[in-house]
Amino acid sequence: MFNIKNLVKPIIRGLRAYEAKEVPCTVKLDANESPYGIEGPFVSALETLKTNRYPDPEAKKLKKIVAKWFGVAPSQVLHGNGSDELIYYLVATFGGPVLYPVPTFSIYGIISQALGEKIIAIPLDTAFDIDLGKMIAAVRRERPKLIFLSTPNNPTGNCFSSEKILRLLDASKGIVVVDEAYQQFSSEKGFTPLLKDHKNLVVMRSLSKIGLAALRLGFLIADPEIIVEVNKVRLPFNVNALSQAVAVEILQNSRGIKASIKTVISERRRLFREMENLDGVHPYPSDANFILFRVKDPESLYQALLKRGVLIRNLNSVVEGCLRVTVGTPEENTFLLETLRASLP
Amino acid sequence: MFNIKNLVKPIIRGLRAYEAKEVPCTVKLDANESPYGIEGPFVSALETLKTNRYPDPEAKKLKKIVAKWFGVAPSQVLHGNGSDELIYYLVATFGGPVLYPVPTFSIYGIISQALGEKIIAIPLDTAFDIDLGKMIAAVRRERPKLIFLSTPNNPTGNCFSSEKILRLLDASKGIVVVDEAYQQFSSEKGFTPLLKDHKNLVVMRSLSKIGLAALRLGFLIADPEIIVEVNKVRLPFNVNALSQAVAVEILQNSRGIKASIKTVISERRRLFREMENLDGVHPYPSDANFILFRVKDPESLYQALLKRGVLIRNLNSVVEGCLRVTVGTPEENTFLLETLRASLP
Repeated sequence: MFNIKNLVKPIIRGLRAYEAKEVPCTVKLDANESPYGIEGPFVSALETLKTNRYPDPEAKKLKKIVAKWFGVAPSQVLHGNGSDELIYYLVATFGGPVLYPVPTFSIYGIISQALGEKIIAIPLDTAFDIDLGKMIAAVRRERPKLIFLSTPNNPTGNCFSSEKILRLLDASKGIVVVDEAYQQFSSEKGFTPLLKDHKNLVVMRSLSKIGLAALRLGFLIADPEIIVEVNKVRLPFNVNALSQAVAVEILQNSRGIKASIKTVISERRRLFREMENLDGVHPYPSDANFILFRVKDPESLYQALLKRGVLIRNLNSVVEGCLRVTVGTPEENTFLLETLRASLP
Repeated sequence: MFNIKNLVKPIIRGLRAYEAKEVPCTVKLDANESPYGIEGPFVSALETLKTNRYPDPEAKKLKKIVAKWFGVAPSQVLHGNGSDELIYYLVATFGGPVLYPVPTFSIYGIISQALGEKIIAIPLDTAFDIDLGKMIAAVRRERPKLIFLSTPNNPTGNCFSSEKILRLLDASKGIVVVDEAYQQFSSEKGFTPLLKDHKNLVVMRSLSKIGLAALRLGFLIADPEIIVEVNKVRLPFNVNALSQAVAVEILQNSRGIKASIKTVISERRRLFREMENLDGVHPYPSDANFILFRVKDPESLYQALLKRGVLIRNLNSVVEGCLRVTVGTPEENTFLLETLRASLP
């Protein structure tokens, strides 16, 4: 008899698959999606699509538009099947050790381990900012090939101090990836303008949080020399033709997206204010499209909300005492607040 | 100054990116695509699609339909962003050495190298079949964790002897991947029925050759225990929601696809007969949707065809003296034959 487990690489044997369970609910506020989808125009973009032809391997049209959006040249952009795939490619290209502060986006660690690389996780300080002393010490001791910094950080919601990120960029002889998946909800202007002075900087952007999660589109922005190297491990047809065509159509007129971002930001402010006024709820300030909050009994509250149809994220095992809620439409947020009030002890 | 090259893993430094150039042409017969796209119905599948929501990570609806198509259970199926991605995952899960006969699909070697695994390439025999003696010797000597067998084989077009594949399955203590991307054009019935007796068998299928290359959909079919392990390295949202919805819509009524496969097979027969009658053209029998053929001066003929608007694949550097042409529509094939006649010396 074959023992499949024995055939699997030891590092994979011990891994667990990433769980992305679908939980039935009325209001879905667990996955940091935009509450606003784009309707209508994209369907016409597909009417002339040839299903039998391979996608443009270079995604030229899409990269041109995205480059303009981000104020960079197309040669500075690499397209991915979501940021997830680009993290895979970065780890495959540069290897480990891979350093990141925790808590943060869990995929950095999952992918690094799946590819057999050493991971170094350094706790954030009590303000959820980078612990510069410990990070710099880890850089000197372990010489990481890659550092991942999610800013605004998921799941804490805050931006890391720019000054600290700059210090890390200077201290590191490896690549520093600034993951700006939530940048558009932030008051900070992002790290793209710093690319010209920091050759080891890679900025990662995503369309998943601003209304296009269904398409799976992420982008690396970096020195063309870095793009050339990472492109070597890219699968030639990694972004399908439907997502390319629909994204081109939608991004050509991004007014709708920009309006929805504004609404989400103003709703986040309202949600934060109202949550602050709830007894036993301690929300943390957020620059993203979600709010992390601390309560006495997160497990019961999570279940009580779900029983009433509101799905949020239980992060108790990651940040003790904490839950995370994505900002929804005004109606969804009002419903969330009512449900919170009804569910608190 | 940063030297990016020095940061890149040595194994990646020496790699070249896979080239998928777009060459302008009138008739595109270079990429083994179906000449028939699916029109119409799929657009309506997207009218209700929520662009802001992440895709179903398990692609449940799609897997159910595909499992039925292939006569297996959904638990035996893993979905990929094209077969390419599944090859990545197989190599990440089982590691190397990776063994395959050559010439064959180049991605097996490219991905294995990108992931730092040792590759062993054993030449096919003069009939383009597996050289069983050499392959078995390599299995005993190198104990490969993975063997890739493309049958029908790209670019030679023939099926490998089933008897030889069975002998390899028995001889190998590693996983044997039978890549059936072109199976539906073949008279052989495929290896899926053998899964129950061969636990180390993995069958790979694709929708790219039968009219849906734009979607990027590939599938592994194997023992659920293998699926569970490979699923650990899968990115949670690897297949976007547009491709899932469109494929479900199209596969629910696959009459169009089946009719197009029949047309391609009958056109392949005609093309083969007519090519056999051309002086200086030696086509090899094919079970796929393309024909490999030998000529005296492949470089000049390739250029002469291109000058007349017909793009085929120049394989001279892979199989000396050979070109590969994808079967097109009847009109395209007639044009190809005319152009061939006009271009031959």
